[in-house]
Parts: sequence; structure tokens; C-alpha cells
Amino acid sequence: MIAILTDFGVSGPYLGQMRAVLYGRAPGIDIVDLFPDLPVCNVRAAAYLLPAYTQYLPADTVCLCVVDPGVGTDRRALALRIDGRWFVGPDNGLFSLLVRRGRDVLVNEIHWRPDTLSDSFHGRDLFAPIAAGLAMGKVDGLDAIDPGQLLVSDWPDELAEVIYLDRYGNAITGLTADALPDTAILDIAGHRCHYCRTFAEAGHGTLFWYRNSNGLVEIAMNQADASACAGLRVGEPITFVPG
Amino acid sequence: MIAILTDFGVSGPYLGQMRAVLYGRAPGIDIVDLFPDLPVCNVRAAAYLLPAYTQYLPADTVCLCVVDPGVGTDRRALALRIDGRWFVGPDNGLFSLLVRRGRDVLVNEIHWRPDTLSDSFHGRDLFAPIAAGLAMGKVDGLDAIDPGQLLVSDWPDELAEVIYLDRYGNAITGLTADALPDTAILDIAGHRCHYCRTFAEAGHGTLFWYRNSNGLVEIAMNQADASACAGLRVGEPITFVPG
Amino acid sequence: MIAILTDFGVSGPYLGQMRAVLYGRAPGIDIVDLFPDLPVCNVRAAAYLLPAYTQYLPADTVCLCVVDPGVGTDRRALALRIDGRWFVGPDNGLFSLLVRRGRDVLVNEIHWRPDTLSDSFHGRDLFAPIAAGLAMGKVDGLDAIDPGQLLVSDWPDELAEVIYLDRYGNAITGLTADALPDTAILDIAGHRCHYCRTFAEAGHGTLFWYRNSNGLVEIAMNQADASACAGLRVGEPITFVPG
Repeated sequence: MIAILTDFGVSGPYLGQMRAVLYGRAPGIDIVDLFPDLPVCNVRAAAYLLPAYTQYLPADTVCLCVVDPGVGTDRRALALRIDGRWFVGPDNGLFSLLVRRGRDVLVNEIHWRPDTLSDSFHGRDLFAPIAAGLAMGKVDGLDAIDPGQLLVSDWPDELAEVIYLDRYGNAITGLTADALPDTAILDIAGHRCHYCRTFAEAGHGTLFWYRNSNGLVEIAMNQADASACAGLRVGEPITFVPG
Repeated sequence: MIAILTDFGVSGPYLGQMRAVLYGRAPGIDIVDLFPDLPVCNVRAAAYLLPAYTQYLPADTVCLCVVDPGVGTDRRALALRIDGRWFVGPDNGLFSLLVRRGRDVLVNEIHWRPDTLSDSFHGRDLFAPIAAGLAMGKVDGLDAIDPGQLLVSDWPDELAEVIYLDRYGNAITGLTADALPDTAILDIAGHRCHYCRTFAEAGHGTLFWYRNSNGLVEIAMNQADASACAGLRVGEPITFVPG
Repeated sequence: MIAILTDFGVSGPYLGQMRAVLYGRAPGIDIVDLFPDLPVCNVRAAAYLLPAYTQYLPADTVCLCVVDPGVGTDRRALALRIDGRWFVGPDNGLFSLLVRRGRDVLVNEIHWRPDTLSDSFHGRDLFAPIAAGLAMGKVDGLDAIDPGQLLVSDWPDELAEVIYLDRYGNAITGLTADALPDTAILDIAGHRCHYCRTFAEAGHGTLFWYRNSNGLVEIAMNQADASACAGLRVGEPITFVPG
């Protein structure tokens, strides 16, 4: 399976052109738009979403990860093998948290380049062919490099801010849910949020936090749009209220 | 074929994760996002859209239907066999109109639960595995129950209100088109709408109603956004103007 | 491969119903939503996008092209063979630029009609079955007509205006990139745009033009939303600033 995680969005001509390349080079392989609208050009938010949203994929899934504001510059192209799955994309910090949290990590630089390489769409021209090749079992042309050579980031282990707003207005954060006790109280945009297990448990019109189905802390409102009601946006900071 | 009808929307990580489960458990089965952005948490609107938008699907199609604001509570999980197709989803009224209008209806409760069941994403953890199983011909583990045991709703046979706004600004209603004569005049948001057969027949800037390609009454404007022009929203009531 | 180019958008019940028909009639064929949200009812913009965004597709790809504001009228249905690919859709000018620029062009009228043909969704009822047939190698039922019989348009070879705004706020134009020297200066909405090869080359907050990955001139801003910042919309005119 090839899973696509990108900030291209579902509209426009980008996802389709990338898929056309994948179908041509990896016939018969299933392709999933796993997270097609990561926050635009926001490598940091994507870095925290990647581990959470790829953790349940089958072994050997190839994750094609394209958030690439530096496209066309000389930043490296990478193929990483982490805990039994492949990750392909640019060396811009996107894989920082995956590498940091992975148990079994192998980092490779991709030196291969296609005959025709556009300056602005390496997702289609470079990363998709590599991902298709890996899905078909072709792993030659990769040069192992030391993980320490990756673009280093000093991003924290836990990111206390909003990293994605979904269609329901729920705000996904960069906080690992298991690290928080039920008694934790969060403050976001001046609102205090207590823990609820399910949406139905929460009163109408009250912001609450819960452990989402991918192990991240999420801020929500039962049958209402939390982000609109509280004016939340990607990057909104979260603080812990002393108990 | 598995057809997905949900309020998840096309963006975000929900449709993709559900598809990843389907691909893993029902290899080779075609999957269609038939109606991926049903109105958010609006079980009633979805209940009227389901019969109209699944009626042309091939026999034995499995319709995976997830509008589930009560996810994580003890509401039943259902697998219904209606007129030769399967429908899988929560017992919250979503299937009311399908059951009422179906000629050959068999209602089953699903008692199976996965080893790991999140509190907020039964579409991925519970309904998708069931749908995949049905698509592969596995119908064991279902307990037939009386349709009278379903969550009863007193929703009318014909719903005289807007249940979906599409990209063009057309407003789909819960009214069956065949029930209305060409002479019917509708009032919506203070505008009178006469019948036109095609868009091209209607004058510019005039709201009209027509029989849409799925058998529902739809309010539209030729080459203009009816919903924006007339300020329509989901839930907007429609009245019949005496002839 | 079947590539879909349409103004249906990715939401709603249109793309899914069309795909359900394709899966049923062309089992095993790959389907790609190549450009699913062409500007609404804007046949002219689509006419310039089609050649650019289909040029890299494999030989024998069937392009299902539906921007069809005249649906239900007696406009012709077409199947064109252009430079080794098929194009299916309405005769409303949509294929003007493809025909004009094609080296090897064969135009066919489709006389076949399905038993049940809705008045508003020929994408599903007429064009999808034809596209599926062509993908399966069925080319009977087509009548060659003279390209001169097509709905003629006097649209220019180069369209100096915005024809699509993407998710990043980049503005795709109807100008062929190869026709413009690096020294060209464009004026759009009162802003002067110089050429940059990559996004990273451009200063923050400065509009620039570049050759996009499909050979069209595109107006953008590095890590900012050019369209929002400069108030661009589809149809925005572009002028050339004397050097």
C-alpha cells in the first residue's frame, strides 16, 4: 500500500498527477490519500501528525510525504525505513519526530533523479517514482546516511499547540494523549478544557479535551464547531492549568 | 463494490484511514466515495439522502454509512440488507427512510467488536471491518432483529426542506420529485420557484426547481449560485404555493 | 487509465456516482481524479487547462472531461482522439485548444444514448459509459466529423488571465510558459511580477511569476497566499510591462 500525506489538498491538479505516476509505475498497488490536506507549508505541524497518523498502517506500507516549501532547492531527498514502513520525502524536518520516536530507523539519501525534473513539483517527478519503486520492492539507488546528518530541529517532544483543524472544527494538538492524566486541565484561547471520554459525555457548548483515535490530545465541542466558537487556528498555543 | 457515505468530508485523515482498513480486509474490491460530505452530524438530512443516492448502485454493493454523533455511546451497530444491497452503520435514525421505503428489508445487529475500539472513530474500527467482511461474503456474526426495534423516528415521508448544498450552489431537498407535478410552485426564503426541465431553460437570475438526476426536488439557478443568491442553508424550509 | 477532469468538485455525490459507473463498466482500469475542481461552469478556463494537465498522461489514457453548463440541451457529445489519447465530453468549446494544438486530431460524434438519460447528469449517464467503453477498447458507435463542425470559439492562442487558483493561493494563467523570456515583466491587479525559477528564490511578500510544472505561467508568492494578498480571482487580466 502507498499512503499519501501532503499539503496539496484534495482539490486541484496535484494529487491526481501524483496518482497517475503511481498507477503507471506500481500497477496493482493500493493507494490511499491518508492525510491529503496537511496544513499548508507547515513542516512542523506535519512532523507531529506523521507518527500519529501512520502508526496503524500495515507493515511495508510506503508513506509518500510531501510538504515541501523548499522544492527546487538543493535540500536532500530521503527514503527512511522506520519500524517496518517506508517514508519518502524531502529533508526539511518533516521526519524529525518519526526518527526521534522510531525504534528501528534507517535513513537513506536518494541520489536518483528523473530525466525531466520540474522545479516546483518533486512530489510528482521525484518522490512518487521512488515511492512506487519501493512499493514494488526496488530498494537500490539508496545511500544510507547517519540520522545525525538530517536537518536537525529543536522541536520539542510534545508540542502544546494546535496542529490541525478538521471538518467538524475539532482541533488536533501535538500532545501525546497517553502522557496526560484524565485530571489534566488545558487552557486554550482563554477557555478551560476538562477531559471527556466521548463527545456524548460533554455538555453542549463546552470545550473539552479527549484522546483522539490516533493517540493525540484533541480539543472539541459536542455537536458544535469548537474552532469557530473559540476562534482557534493552527498554531494556537495550549497551556496546562495547575490542578 | 463498497460505497462510502459519510459526513467526514474529503479532507483530513478520516476517509483515508477507513480506506486503508477496507483495502487491507477486502483486497481487490472497488471502493467509491459516493457521498463523502453529508451535512455534519445531521442524521436526518442523511436519512433522506441515502435512498436517493444509493438507488442506482449495483446489486450486492455494501454501503458504509457513517454519520455518527453518538459514537462511543452504547447505540447499536447495524448491518441491513435492503433490496439486494448492504448498509452498515450506527442505529441513530440514519436508515429510517431506507427501511420505510424498502420492499425487502432485513435488519441485523452487529455484536462483533474489534480487539481495539477507539471511542471516537467507529467508522475505522468497527464499521469498516464489517463492511469489508460483507463485501468478501462473510455474513456470520449478525443477529436479525425486528425493524420495529430500530431507533424510531417520526420524520415525515417527504421532507420539505433543504438537505444539501452542492458546489454549484444548488439546494437538494428531501422532496421526492415524482410526487410533484410540473405545475407545482415552491416558496423558499421568500422566492417563488417554478419548474424547469433543464438549467438552460431557466432565465438568468431566476430561482427554479427541477427533478434532479437522483429523483429529488432541487432548487437552482442557471449558471449562478442559487444558495448564495437567495441565502439558502441546510434546513431551509420549503412551502407549496397554492396554484 | 481513465483521467477525470471536471468542475464537479471533490465533495458531493457527483464524482462518486460517475466512478461507480466506471468501475462497473471498466473493471480493473485505473481511475484518476486528475483535475476534479475546474472553475465552475467556466468552459473557457477549462479549455486552456486541459492541454496543460493531460500532456503527461500515458498513451491511450481516456480523459473524461465534464464542464457542461448546457447539459440536457441538444449540444453534441464528442469523443476525440488527439495525439494518442481519448477525450470524451460535450461540444461546447471545451476541446478548442486541444484540437487547435493537437498534431493528430480525430473528432467523433457520439450518437449512442443510454436507455435512461437524466436531464442534468450526462457525466454519469452518457460520458462515463462512453469513457469506460473506450478504456475497454470499444470504439464502435462513433461517427467521424470534421473538426470544423465543432462549436467554434475565437478564444486566443494565449490567454492572458488567471484560469485557476490553487490551495496555496497560486494563480495559474492561460499563458504558455515557453513563450515567455525570463526577462518578461507581468502586471496583475496593479502588481509587477518578475520571473523566479523557484519559490525559494523569491523574497517574502513579493509576487513573482514562474513556469509551473505543467508548462503554464503561474503567479505566486513564497510561503504566502498570492491570491489573497493581491485579491486575485479567476478571470483576472494580465498585461505585459514593456521592458
